[in-house]
Amino acid sequence: MATSQPIPSSPRARETVTGLSRYLPFTRWLLHYRRADLPSDLVAGLVTAIMLIPQSMAYAQLAGLPPQVGLYASVAPLILYALLGTSGQLSVGPVAITSLLVFSGVSALAEPGSARYIQLVLILALIVGMIKLLLGVFRLGVILNFISHPVLAAFTSASALIIAAGQLKYLLGYKVTGDRFYEVLYHAAQGLGQTNLITLSIGVSSIVLLLFFRKGLRPILQRLGLRPLAVTLIVSGAPLVTVLFGTLITWLLRLDQRAGVAVVGAIPPGLSPLSWPAPTIGDVQALLPAAAAIVLVSVVESIAVAKTLASKRRQAIDPDQELIALGAANIGAGLFSGYPVTGGFARSVVNFQAGAVTGLASLVTAGGIALILLFFTPLFYYLPQAVLAATVIVAVFGLVDLKEPGHIWQANRSDAITWGITFAAVLLLGIEMGIFIGVGASLLLYLWRTSRPHIAVVGRLGESEVYRNILRYEVQTWPHVVAVRVDESLYFANTRYLENALLRIVAEHPEVKHLVLIGSAINFIDSSALHTLEALIQELRDAGVQLHLAEIKGPVMDGLKRAHFVEKIGPEHIHLTTHAAMRSLGCV
Amino acid sequence: MATSQPIPSSPRARETVTGLSRYLPFTRWLLHYRRADLPSDLVAGLVTAIMLIPQSMAYAQLAGLPPQVGLYASVAPLILYALLGTSGQLSVGPVAITSLLVFSGVSALAEPGSARYIQLVLILALIVGMIKLLLGVFRLGVILNFISHPVLAAFTSASALIIAAGQLKYLLGYKVTGDRFYEVLYHAAQGLGQTNLITLSIGVSSIVLLLFFRKGLRPILQRLGLRPLAVTLIVSGAPLVTVLFGTLITWLLRLDQRAGVAVVGAIPPGLSPLSWPAPTIGDVQALLPAAAAIVLVSVVESIAVAKTLASKRRQAIDPDQELIALGAANIGAGLFSGYPVTGGFARSVVNFQAGAVTGLASLVTAGGIALILLFFTPLFYYLPQAVLAATVIVAVFGLVDLKEPGHIWQANRSDAITWGITFAAVLLLGIEMGIFIGVGASLLLYLWRTSRPHIAVVGRLGESEVYRNILRYEVQTWPHVVAVRVDESLYFANTRYLENALLRIVAEHPEVKHLVLIGSAINFIDSSALHTLEALIQELRDAGVQLHLAEIKGPVMDGLKRAHFVEKIGPEHIHLTTHAAMRSLGCV
Repeated sequence: MATSQPIPSSPRARETVTGLSRYLPFTRWLLHYRRADLPSDLVAGLVTAIMLIPQSMAYAQLAGLPPQVGLYASVAPLILYALLGTSGQLSVGPVAITSLLVFSGVSALAEPGSARYIQLVLILALIVGMIKLLLGVFRLGVILNFISHPVLAAFTSASALIIAAGQLKYLLGYKVTGDRFYEVLYHAAQGLGQTNLITLSIGVSSIVLLLFFRKGLRPILQRLGLRPLAVTLIVSGAPLVTVLFGTLITWLLRLDQRAGVAVVGAIPPGLSPLSWPAPTIGDVQALLPAAAAIVLVSVVESIAVAKTLASKRRQAIDPDQELIALGAANIGAGLFSGYPVTGGFARSVVNFQAGAVTGLASLVTAGGIALILLFFTPLFYYLPQAVLAATVIVAVFGLVDLKEPGHIWQANRSDAITWGITFAAVLLLGIEMGIFIGVGASLLLYLWRTSRPHIAVVGRLGESEVYRNILRYEVQTWPHVVAVRVDESLYFANTRYLENALLRIVAEHPEVKHLVLIGSAINFIDSSALHTLEALIQELRDAGVQLHLAEIKGPVMDGLKRAHFVEKIGPEHIHLTTHAAMRSLGCV
Repeated sequence: MATSQPIPSSPRARETVTGLSRYLPFTRWLLHYRRADLPSDLVAGLVTAIMLIPQSMAYAQLAGLPPQVGLYASVAPLILYALLGTSGQLSVGPVAITSLLVFSGVSALAEPGSARYIQLVLILALIVGMIKLLLGVFRLGVILNFISHPVLAAFTSASALIIAAGQLKYLLGYKVTGDRFYEVLYHAAQGLGQTNLITLSIGVSSIVLLLFFRKGLRPILQRLGLRPLAVTLIVSGAPLVTVLFGTLITWLLRLDQRAGVAVVGAIPPGLSPLSWPAPTIGDVQALLPAAAAIVLVSVVESIAVAKTLASKRRQAIDPDQELIALGAANIGAGLFSGYPVTGGFARSVVNFQAGAVTGLASLVTAGGIALILLFFTPLFYYLPQAVLAATVIVAVFGLVDLKEPGHIWQANRSDAITWGITFAAVLLLGIEMGIFIGVGASLLLYLWRTSRPHIAVVGRLGESEVYRNILRYEVQTWPHVVAVRVDESLYFANTRYLENALLRIVAEHPEVKHLVLIGSAINFIDSSALHTLEALIQELRDAGVQLHLAEIKGPVMDGLKRAHFVEKIGPEHIHLTTHAAMRSLGCV
């Protein structure tokens, strides 16, 4: 199983993993904590907290939730992940695409922001947590391998466009309705006359400021000779600076009252309250598709991020334990008034660049956010929603990658088709439906491909024992023998294709008396294919042609013996190699 | 495409197929009809008609329809198939499993036997016909390859049990409710006290008589020295003899009035009336799953039967043209008051044994049934329903094959699991759901299998250029090189499995400097796998190990070049053969 063993990303870096530390990974770093790591972890934790504060609120807004829910989701889940996770760098919390999936999954069932909505979101977090936990405990993370690269790439790009479109209402200052991407754009365009220009100005300035911090400031700071850590600190502080800037202006000019700029408003102070959403069977059923989509997307991203960062530090992550830790984090979100969380790419990179070595960095981040919740929530009263929208737009901007389909097209046409289907399905049918259609399409295209295997008639290369495709090489052939290589395992979906192809080849070679089927690329033969082969032996005999097998692999041969196929074809018609078959047929 | 070309079943028997006869296959036999074939076709047509008369009525009863609908379905469809089909032996008409699918699909929407029910059945026939026609016209018959042998075997056995259970109510003479197999058995057992013993006696005697005709009579007749054709004629007449016998007794003793024996009753005389069921979009949507299941099951069976029989006569069938002919036959059923039809196995074998050479035999059968409809329907007034039930039970009896799962288990464990899942799903969840679950399970098991490919570390066999699995052969290996053969194409579902496996192998060989990945069984590499390989190159380099490729096939290599992978790994690390790789690494 792909994820059944703790595999070091760097093969030489394998550690001895004892029983206790297997199940409670924090014992690995907490019991042997090196004082030298303390400053790095402290700084990384604080830098991440500074980035996470505005982002958590912005993503909560995207998920249709009050801003404090985003902050709640950044305390308990982080602590649980720090204790149970195997990555010292992964920063868990609200992320853009999960927030969008929450919104699209729950807004169909309840009015966003209502008590019922929040209850359903908490139930969703519990379901997501339970699924991840169970996948981890039963070592079934391998299921997530069925989300292919083109599906994930298309899903991410299309979701980012949907997220950006969804923020238009905060930037423009009027209500935009519609679920689908095109509906949102259409309604946004229709209402342009009602634009609140002050709100728009604040939003656009925030975007410009954030982009400057992100793209323009780093080279300037580097040219000024600042240490890399200081650069990371300043650049990561961008969202917070923008938030403070927007809040100050709004407060000073009273823009909320004088210009109708929508602000965050009162955030109840205090740590994440305990919550028990009391799920019913009906709620669970209604939320299951959204939960499945969240698990699929968030786990694939989290584990990819954790793996990449761990390998750069020559550390190991254990995918199954990661699932358990992410599961616990989400259950924590459900029990402490949060919403589904996952390991975010941007945030984890900041955590990594700021020097995080162990889970202590995440504990520091959680502590920082807890402090905000306890003492500083009034500071955000005048924070314009447009600033949060700007934060989201800039964050997802980098996720839209429209060069990728070109690369995929070059490498593999059918993967490019998968990309296109997923991208279109997400934009036209919605993100949940889109991801499932993408996964389904990639599986069907794979089946379609294997149902029409490449079949080559081969001949002898010079005087060698090597037999190659007659269409690609100058090879020797014989009129009474045709040797055919099938480049696929034989199974129900391609067995009739094979039968027809072989009969056609025989029909095209009127003098042929022997057909040699070369099995070097046949990794298994299922019972449907066995039935077809048995029928084929007879059909060929009726036509005066004998079927032979050559280069059958050990495990495949074992299966043929068990099914008594060897007696049916006759053991003398099975040859170790193609060359041996040719020798026994008097060709060489 | 599997079915895109007219492939002769016997490769040497290919005929020249011209434009006209390609689309109107009857021109092949009708324009050049050989007088010598006439007696055979006439006898075969009549024998089949004799068998078809009671069977059509029995299957109509199974489908929840009045008996004449079964007869209607045996006129127009047979004529259309005779004109458009490419098999001279396939006998089209109502069959057991299709009838059951009709009942289970339509009885959920309307009361069986009601006008609405009959209307929906006609719409269903039109939908089935259109689907088959379109699959044939667009040469998409290959889709039907996705129904594997174990799925079909399990579906057939389980359906036969359901059909037999469904006939209990006619044998026992009381109403048995319930949709599922176990419900029917349970309710039948509960009502045993109400059994109509006269009805039961008629039913059981009919079963005994039919079994005697089928099993016992043939050897006796053969021993008496009768000609094979006469034997076939007498044995095929069994259902009709049983019907006449049961009808006579019931009429003579007035069992319908005096003992409450349920009889067929009045059948309106006259040929199949024209019908136009006026389908609505809603009807079509509601019937689509049933139609899909009928298409899936009936086409697979029809084409298999046609192919087998044609190959015995050294004739050819064209699967796509078969789909068109079956489609036309079903549309004919919808327009002439019938219900979905297909090529039946038992009936076609009788047609074949009685000597059918061309489609004329089917025309004769249709004519015989038309005569019955025109003049002889009053004969069936006193026909007990229990006799028809006996006909059905004996017909499906041979379909239950409980030895097959054992054979499948021996040949292939995962196919046996598919058999078990399909069998259980059909019995527990119903036949439509069962077939779809079976197809889904077989596809998932295939994906599961390919997601965990066989990976072998190989070494050199003696002084040869052959490299084999170190676990199966005594081979030479080297400490600084590991050669690994992956027995599967690399695609998204197995790419992480491969990555982990390779990293584990490297971790187990601490001295290794070079990892050679052998691609002889790799038939393609998708873009997810390319991403993983690129990451792997870097991960291995970090660990001081160089990745090499060997024996990459032509088409795969083309893809690697297009994706610029060759530059990333370095062209010097790609070798033509494993032996060449070993030579360049200084091993040999």
